[in-house]
Amino acid sequence: MEQSILDKLNWRYATKKFDPNKNLPEKDLNILLESLRLSASSFGLQPWKFVHIRNKDLRAKLKEPAWDQAQIIDASDLIVFCGLKNLNKNYVEKFIAQVARVRGVDFSSLDGYKKIMVDFVEGLSSEQLEAWISKQVYIALGNLLTICALNNIDACPMEGFDPVKFDEVLGLEKNGITSKVLCTIGYRSKQDQYATLKKVRFSKEEVVIEM
Amino acid sequence: MEQSILDKLNWRYATKKFDPNKNLPEKDLNILLESLRLSASSFGLQPWKFVHIRNKDLRAKLKEPAWDQAQIIDASDLIVFCGLKNLNKNYVEKFIAQVARVRGVDFSSLDGYKKIMVDFVEGLSSEQLEAWISKQVYIALGNLLTICALNNIDACPMEGFDPVKFDEVLGLEKNGITSKVLCTIGYRSKQDQYATLKKVRFSKEEVVIEM
Repeated sequence: MEQSILDKLNWRYATKKFDPNKNLPEKDLNILLESLRLSASSFGLQPWKFVHIRNKDLRAKLKEPAWDQAQIIDASDLIVFCGLKNLNKNYVEKFIAQVARVRGVDFSSLDGYKKIMVDFVEGLSSEQLEAWISKQVYIALGNLLTICALNNIDACPMEGFDPVKFDEVLGLEKNGITSKVLCTIGYRSKQDQYATLKKVRFSKEEVVIEM
Repeated sequence: MEQSILDKLNWRYATKKFDPNKNLPEKDLNILLESLRLSASSFGLQPWKFVHIRNKDLRAKLKEPAWDQAQIIDASDLIVFCGLKNLNKNYVEKFIAQVARVRGVDFSSLDGYKKIMVDFVEGLSSEQLEAWISKQVYIALGNLLTICALNNIDACPMEGFDPVKFDEVLGLEKNGITSKVLCTIGYRSKQDQYATLKKVRFSKEEVVIEM
């Protein structure tokens, strides 16, 4: 394992000012989106969709409901991380059908696996289910941030936005999803004063407990 | 950006059977723990601690409250991802003190920044705060899973455990933290039949919405 991983994670920061003239190459963008698709989730259920927006006209409509933050427009790309609104038995069955297809096994041979997931999903209140979905989405966010950092791509994860307005502007309801968190990606501007600030972390002694 | 990233993310799977005789080298383990420490979080608040356990006697006590899953013992290391139980104004002030120290600025010059965070934290109900902390912890989990995958280290993220019993066995209350999610890390056993199963993901058309 290379020590340089840590240099790259240290290089990463929540980019406040992107260079509006630098776009991610198509190839890199595709690798990032594919990385998102491969993210881990509990049971592998993938209770998410990722809305990718390069269109700046559309993003102009999202700036105000994102507390007017410039990253929404200046970054090369905006990813809206969304969670499913209805994760129910039907969705689990759709997932099981995909397992059967990909692995070439009978749908019915997966009944036990299906039951565990259906029982889990149906055993949660709607609030618990929503919180659980959010957590899975944040695994994908963590994955993306790390892949970006290791490849010298800048990113800004953003919780500061109005999900209701985002859902409205993007018409997410018809897709059965709701926006959870944002990530803008691209390249830092040379003028971003935040880029040179020292990263602040508590010490290893403070955050890692050895037992 | 290298296409091989995707090969590594495809290679990753939730390892069910670890090789109990293979431990992570100390150097790699330190890089992983340091990667965790560098994880992104909202406001950079790091509302977490990571309990690292190599001791197999202690892990033996955690197996039953982790639904008796063998990974708890067989993996090289167990990381218990924990969230703070009391994220309040005092904690924000401790963080601000760290910002002031690291960046060599006056504590009072950060009053505006502090107020935003205190208002945010105090504006959440205890349930909302707990959910928010969990999400931050999952960013760190996503980060770790990706760093592991890219370095041919196996991992198994685990939600299936009893947090109350874990907190009890590990005496986490005195640290002001509670267990949120686990990750076992190490090397897959050649006998893990799950290792050769095809990864199941929905298609790009299904999960990525282009706008």
